[in-house]
Amino acid sequence: MAGSTLGTIFRISTWGESHGKGIGVVIDGCPAGLPLEEADIQKYLDLRKPGQNPYTTKRKEADAAEILSGVFEGKTTGTPISILVRNEDQRSRDYGEIRELYRPGHADFCFDEKYGFRDYRGGGRSSGRETIARVAAGAVAAKILGTLGISIRAYADSIGPVHVNPDRLDFSYTYESPLRMPDREAEALAMDYVKSCVKALDSSGGSVICQALGLPAGLGEPVFDKLDANLAKSLMSIGAVKAVEIGDGTVVSERKGSENNDWYALNEEGVPYKTTNHAGGILGGISDGSPVTVRVTFKPTSSIAAPQPMLGRDGALHESVSIHGRHDPLIVPRAVVVVEAMTALTILDLLLQNLSSRMDYLQQIYGHSAS
Amino acid sequence: MAGSTLGTIFRISTWGESHGKGIGVVIDGCPAGLPLEEADIQKYLDLRKPGQNPYTTKRKEADAAEILSGVFEGKTTGTPISILVRNEDQRSRDYGEIRELYRPGHADFCFDEKYGFRDYRGGGRSSGRETIARVAAGAVAAKILGTLGISIRAYADSIGPVHVNPDRLDFSYTYESPLRMPDREAEALAMDYVKSCVKALDSSGGSVICQALGLPAGLGEPVFDKLDANLAKSLMSIGAVKAVEIGDGTVVSERKGSENNDWYALNEEGVPYKTTNHAGGILGGISDGSPVTVRVTFKPTSSIAAPQPMLGRDGALHESVSIHGRHDPLIVPRAVVVVEAMTALTILDLLLQNLSSRMDYLQQIYGHSAS
Amino acid sequence: MAGSTLGTIFRISTWGESHGKGIGVVIDGCPAGLPLEEADIQKYLDLRKPGQNPYTTKRKEADAAEILSGVFEGKTTGTPISILVRNEDQRSRDYGEIRELYRPGHADFCFDEKYGFRDYRGGGRSSGRETIARVAAGAVAAKILGTLGISIRAYADSIGPVHVNPDRLDFSYTYESPLRMPDREAEALAMDYVKSCVKALDSSGGSVICQALGLPAGLGEPVFDKLDANLAKSLMSIGAVKAVEIGDGTVVSERKGSENNDWYALNEEGVPYKTTNHAGGILGGISDGSPVTVRVTFKPTSSIAAPQPMLGRDGALHESVSIHGRHDPLIVPRAVVVVEAMTALTILDLLLQNLSSRMDYLQQIYGHSAS
Amino acid sequence: MAGSTLGTIFRISTWGESHGKGIGVVIDGCPAGLPLEEADIQKYLDLRKPGQNPYTTKRKEADAAEILSGVFEGKTTGTPISILVRNEDQRSRDYGEIRELYRPGHADFCFDEKYGFRDYRGGGRSSGRETIARVAAGAVAAKILGTLGISIRAYADSIGPVHVNPDRLDFSYTYESPLRMPDREAEALAMDYVKSCVKALDSSGGSVICQALGLPAGLGEPVFDKLDANLAKSLMSIGAVKAVEIGDGTVVSERKGSENNDWYALNEEGVPYKTTNHAGGILGGISDGSPVTVRVTFKPTSSIAAPQPMLGRDGALHESVSIHGRHDPLIVPRAVVVVEAMTALTILDLLLQNLSSRMDYLQQIYGHSAS
Repeated sequence: MAGSTLGTIFRISTWGESHGKGIGVVIDGCPAGLPLEEADIQKYLDLRKPGQNPYTTKRKEADAAEILSGVFEGKTTGTPISILVRNEDQRSRDYGEIRELYRPGHADFCFDEKYGFRDYRGGGRSSGRETIARVAAGAVAAKILGTLGISIRAYADSIGPVHVNPDRLDFSYTYESPLRMPDREAEALAMDYVKSCVKALDSSGGSVICQALGLPAGLGEPVFDKLDANLAKSLMSIGAVKAVEIGDGTVVSERKGSENNDWYALNEEGVPYKTTNHAGGILGGISDGSPVTVRVTFKPTSSIAAPQPMLGRDGALHESVSIHGRHDPLIVPRAVVVVEAMTALTILDLLLQNLSSRMDYLQQIYGHSAS
Repeated sequence: MAGSTLGTIFRISTWGESHGKGIGVVIDGCPAGLPLEEADIQKYLDLRKPGQNPYTTKRKEADAAEILSGVFEGKTTGTPISILVRNEDQRSRDYGEIRELYRPGHADFCFDEKYGFRDYRGGGRSSGRETIARVAAGAVAAKILGTLGISIRAYADSIGPVHVNPDRLDFSYTYESPLRMPDREAEALAMDYVKSCVKALDSSGGSVICQALGLPAGLGEPVFDKLDANLAKSLMSIGAVKAVEIGDGTVVSERKGSENNDWYALNEEGVPYKTTNHAGGILGGISDGSPVTVRVTFKPTSSIAAPQPMLGRDGALHESVSIHGRHDPLIVPRAVVVVEAMTALTILDLLLQNLSSRMDYLQQIYGHSAS
Repeated sequence: MAGSTLGTIFRISTWGESHGKGIGVVIDGCPAGLPLEEADIQKYLDLRKPGQNPYTTKRKEADAAEILSGVFEGKTTGTPISILVRNEDQRSRDYGEIRELYRPGHADFCFDEKYGFRDYRGGGRSSGRETIARVAAGAVAAKILGTLGISIRAYADSIGPVHVNPDRLDFSYTYESPLRMPDREAEALAMDYVKSCVKALDSSGGSVICQALGLPAGLGEPVFDKLDANLAKSLMSIGAVKAVEIGDGTVVSERKGSENNDWYALNEEGVPYKTTNHAGGILGGISDGSPVTVRVTFKPTSSIAAPQPMLGRDGALHESVSIHGRHDPLIVPRAVVVVEAMTALTILDLLLQNLSSRMDYLQQIYGHSAS
Repeated sequence: MAGSTLGTIFRISTWGESHGKGIGVVIDGCPAGLPLEEADIQKYLDLRKPGQNPYTTKRKEADAAEILSGVFEGKTTGTPISILVRNEDQRSRDYGEIRELYRPGHADFCFDEKYGFRDYRGGGRSSGRETIARVAAGAVAAKILGTLGISIRAYADSIGPVHVNPDRLDFSYTYESPLRMPDREAEALAMDYVKSCVKALDSSGGSVICQALGLPAGLGEPVFDKLDANLAKSLMSIGAVKAVEIGDGTVVSERKGSENNDWYALNEEGVPYKTTNHAGGILGGISDGSPVTVRVTFKPTSSIAAPQPMLGRDGALHESVSIHGRHDPLIVPRAVVVVEAMTALTILDLLLQNLSSRMDYLQQIYGHSAS
C-alpha cells in the first residue's frame, strides 16, 4: 500500500506527479444530496495557485478542476467523486541537471533507495503540486461542514522571525494578504524579511495556525483515532511540515497543572463558560466544544538559489550546485489553504464516524423501520 | 469504529478500562518464527509500572502479562497474539465523588457528550493504564526490529523548566534514572523541581525525545502514510501529548533554507557523510538512513491535589474541589517507554508495508515459483 | 496483516487456537448505550456447543464467555468489548500422531508452507473452535439489529442427500432439532443418514439457509462493499464452506430474464407487492426491503475415522492412517448459529456505514449544532 | 465509506458512471519497477468491449485507457497509477422514459431508497460499464502475477442450459470464441440458444469458471481474509453474480468425507501427487499449490425487450413497459475477462500481504541492514 489514501468513511485517494499528465483525487464516501459544482472546488484551488504575489513561483497554471463523476443534476450522488486537474506548464528540462544529484532537503535520495529509481522531474510525487488533490477534496469537506455550522480558518502565524500580534488579528484580511497574514503591521515586516531572503538567494520558514469553530463536543475516538492524533497525522503529512502543536503546544512542557488546566467560571447570567482554552478544544482526544486550535511549523523551502554542496547518485560530492527552476522562497502563504483542507478532511471523517457511536443515533435514523 | 486499532500490517487492537477486569491487546500480523515469551513483554511493562520512585502514583499493580494465543513452542505462529493484563488494585470508591463532576483537563465532559454517559471510575478508557496495551505490543515490535539491527531509545528531555544538556547524555543511565533523564546533573535539578510541585499540590509538564537507530533508508510512504505523519499520529495519540516535532521541530520556522538544509561532506577517506541532521532522518516522509529523531511534549498531569473549580453534570459550578486518588505529579518518566513502544510499532508497520514496494523484492521471495 | 479483523465500523478482531489458552474477540465500534450482559452472549454460544446430540463431538466444554471490557453498569460504553472464552478440555496428546502428517482436507500442509511450521494440535487457528469468537461477536450484533426490528434466522437446508421441504418449515423447531432442521420429516431421514455415515466411519456434507427479516431497503454499498459481496466473504470465511448463493443462487444460470426478474403486482387494496423474491432481497448489491436470503454449502467433515492415505512432512506417503480425536460427523448443525452470527455482523456493519450516506441523516443528528 | 475501494496492499479505488464523463481507477500500492504501458491495459479492455459479436450491445465505444500517473520512462514508480477511460457514446435520452420507473432486476428502487435520488441514466454507478475500472486494474495485477509465473484463465462454463464438456476444452479458443466458450460444439448450441432468447425478446443466464495456475502454496490468511473468502467477495461484487463456488462447490453438500477429501498417491518415480482437486486448490483458506478453481453464476440480463410490469416512483403499477436502450442478451461473454481481473486482483493482494508473514522473509529483504 503506497499510502495515498486518507480517511475511514470520507476517504480520499490522491494521485499524480508534478510533471505527469495531471493531479487528481477520488473521494469515496461523500454523503448524497450535497449541492456541488466545480466552482466550489475552484474557489479553494485558486487560493493555493502560484503567481499571486511577487514572491511565489512564477509558474502560471490554471489548475482548473474538472469533476468527472459523483455529481448529477448539481448534487452529490453518494458515489465516488473523481476530480482531475491537468498539468499544463511542465518544463521538465529545468530538472535535467539534477537528475543525477540529490538535492539537500529533498527526498531524492530516499526515493532512489525506496524504489530503485525515481521520477526526477520536479519532485514527482513529493512535489508541492500534490497538495492540489488535498485542497480539492478539502473544499468538498469544508462545504459539508459549513452546512452544519462548522467553519475552518487558518492563517500565517509567523514568517521567519516575524510573528502576528494576536491583538491585531483581522481575519477578513487573511485571503487579501499575499502572505495570508491577517495583521497588516506584521505582514509589512514579513514582506521585508522575505525580500531580504530572496535577495540572498535564500528561503524562509514559518508557521500556520488553524482553528475549527462551531464543532460539537464529542468528536474524536478515545484511543488511536483521537481528534488531535488524526490532525497530527494529516497535517504532518503535508510536505515541509516539521511540527504539529495542539492548543498551547510545546510551551505546556514548562507549565504546572494549575496553570494549564482550563477552568470554568459563571458569566453574569450564571451560565458557565471556559476562562481559557490552553487545551485547544480537545481533551482525551475528543472535542470539548471550544474552538479547536492547532499550530503547524513549516521548514524553509529546501530549493534555494544559492549554491550548495550536493551528493551525486554516483556517491561523489559536487561542492557547489545551484538549483534552477521556479520555487517559492516561502511555503507558508500557499500552505494556509492546504492546512484548512487537511483540517476539514480530518474533522469531517471523525464527524461521520461519530454517527455510529450511540444507540440513540441509530434509533433516530432507522427507528421507523422497527415499527 | 471506535478507533482502537492501529497499523495496517502489524495491526494492534487494544481494549480495557482502568477499573474494569483488565487491559489487553490483540496483535494481528506478527510474522511467524519470532522467538517470544512473556518475559519479553514483562520487561517493557515493568519499565512503565507505577511505584518505582517516590513521585509516581502509589498504586501497586503487578501488571503481569499473559500471552493467550499466537505463540507455540516458544515461537510466534503468524496468527494473532492476544496479551492480557488483569487489573488488580482497583479502588473504585476513590472516584465516587467525581462521578457527577467534570475534572479540569480530563475528558469527562467529552465522554458524556459523545456517548451519553461514561465509566467514571478513574478515567475509564482514557486512563493512563490504557498504555499497558501499547507497551505490550511495542515490546513485540521492538523485538522484531532488534533482529534487523534497529533500536529505539527515548528519554526525558525536559521536566518543567529543566532540560538535559545534550553534551552530558549518558544513555546507559536512562532506565536507572527514576525520572528517565540520562543526565545526572539535570536529573538532580528536575527532582528538586518535582518535589516543589508535589509540595504545592501541583504537577509538572515535560518532554521526551525518541531516536530510532539503524533504520534503512526508504521506509515511509510518500503522501499520507509518511513516516513522520504516522509517528505524529501514534505519538499524539498518547494521552497528555500536546505536540510532536520531527528533527529540529518548531525552531525551523525561524530558519533560512541555507541554515536548515542538511549537507554532505567528505570524510578523510573521501566517503560522504551528513554534517547535520536537522531533518531528523526523514525527508519527504521517507527515512534517509540517519537517526530518526522526534520530540514529544507532555502537558502537566491534569489531576492535581490543589482545589480547583469544577463544572458539574448538572451545569452548576463547584468553586473548589480537590481530586483524591493516586496520581503521578509528572507523566514523563513512565511515558518514556510508551513513546518507545509507539515509535517501534509505527516503524515496524511501515517496514512491513515497504516489503511490497519493489518488484525485485517480490522476485526475491517468490521468484523460485516462477521457474 | 494476518486477516483476523472483519468489518469497517463494527469491527471485530478474533484470536485463539483450539489447544491454546482460550479463544476471544475484541469488538471495536459497538455503539454506546446497548444493554449487554454475559448471558446475551452465552445464549448464542450454547447453541454451537458440542455434545448436544449423539452425533457431535464428545468433547465437553463449558465455553463460558467472560466480558472483560466495554460494558459499565449493564450498558455498552462505546469502547472495545473484549470477550474471553477459556479453553478447558484440551487433549493435545490426541494430536501427537498427526504431527508429522498432512491430514486430507485440512490446512496442515498449507500452514507449514505459509509459516514454516504450525501448531499441530487440533488444527490450531483453523480449528472449528475459532468460530466461538464469531458467535460471541455475532450475539452482540444480533442484539443491536433486534432493537431495530431486524431478525436473522438460519437452518439446515440439507444434510447429505436429504433436503427440507419448504412447505413443511416450522422455524419454532429449528433450535429444538439436534440437527437444526425445521422439518421433522426431513430431520428423521437425515438422522438415519448421519447414523449410516458414522457407522461407515465417514462424514456428511450439507447446506444452511439464512434469512434476514425486517431489513430496510438501502443497505449495502454499490461497488465492492455490496451487501451480497460482504455476505459472500464473511460466510465463505467460515471453515468448510465451499459455496455461497444469494436468493435462488446457481439455478439462475439456466433461467431467462423473464423468469428471473421479480415483478410487482397490486394486492386487493391496490398496494404493490413483490410476487417473487428470486433475487434474495438484494439488487445491485443493495437491500430492496424483501427478506435477504443466502444459502451456504458445507463440505463433509474432513476428519473421518476411516483410514486414508496421508502425505508426511518428509514427503513420504503413508498408505492408510486413521484420524483419532473427537470430530463431528457433520458440520451443519453446529454451523447454523455461526452462519447467523456472520450474517448479523455483516448486515450491522453495512447498516452503520449507511448512516453516513445522506446529508439529511447528518442534519438529523448534528443539525442542532448549526443553529 | 461508499465501498469503492478493494484490497489492502494492492488497493484499487474505482469511480465513474455509465453516462458521466468517464470511468476510472486509482491503483495504490503497485510495486515499483514493473514495465507498464497503456497497451498492457488496452489489451484487456478490448476483451470486454461491446460490439464484438452479434449478440452484445450495439453501443460502440473505443474504451481507450489513458495512464495519468504512476509510470515514468515505461516503468511503474511505486506511486498511484491513475487510469482514465472517457465515456463517448452516451445516449442519455434513451433513459428518460425509465426515469420515474423501477426496472425489474435493477437497483433503481434501492438507489432511490439509499440516497434519496439517483442518476437514472443507464444505471449510473451500477452499470456494467463500471467493470471497465476493474478490468484496467486487473490487467496490471495480471502482469505482475505473470512475472512470477502465475496465470489466470476464465471461460464460459455454461450459457443457459448448455454446458461445456470438460473433455473438449480448448483454451486456445476461449478468446476467439464470441461467447468465450472454449468448446466449439457447446458454443454452437449456446449460440442457437442465445438466438432464440433474442428472438423471444428475452435474455439468458450462464456461468464462468476461473482457474489460477502456478500459485505457490501458502497464500491466504487463516480466518477472515481467506483466499476463498476474498475471492467470494470480489467475484460476488461483480454485478449480476448470484453464486460463487470454490472447487466442486455446491455438489459437495451431498458428498461423504471419504469421497470429497483429496488424496495423494505416488507417481512412477515415487513422487507424491494429488489424485483429485475437489477442494479447488484451497484448504483452510490457504492455497495448497494445486490450481485454484472457482465457479461464478451470472443471472440473465435484467433488461429485456419484452414488456414487463414495473413499479413507478409514485407507487403506481405500470402493467406493461418495454425497456429500450442497448443491452446484452447475455452477460457471460463480456464478464469472462472481468472474472479474470477480479481473481488476479484478489490473488495479488494476498500474495503481497504474505510477504510479511515470516521472519525469514524480513531477513531476506532487510537482513543486510543488520550487519
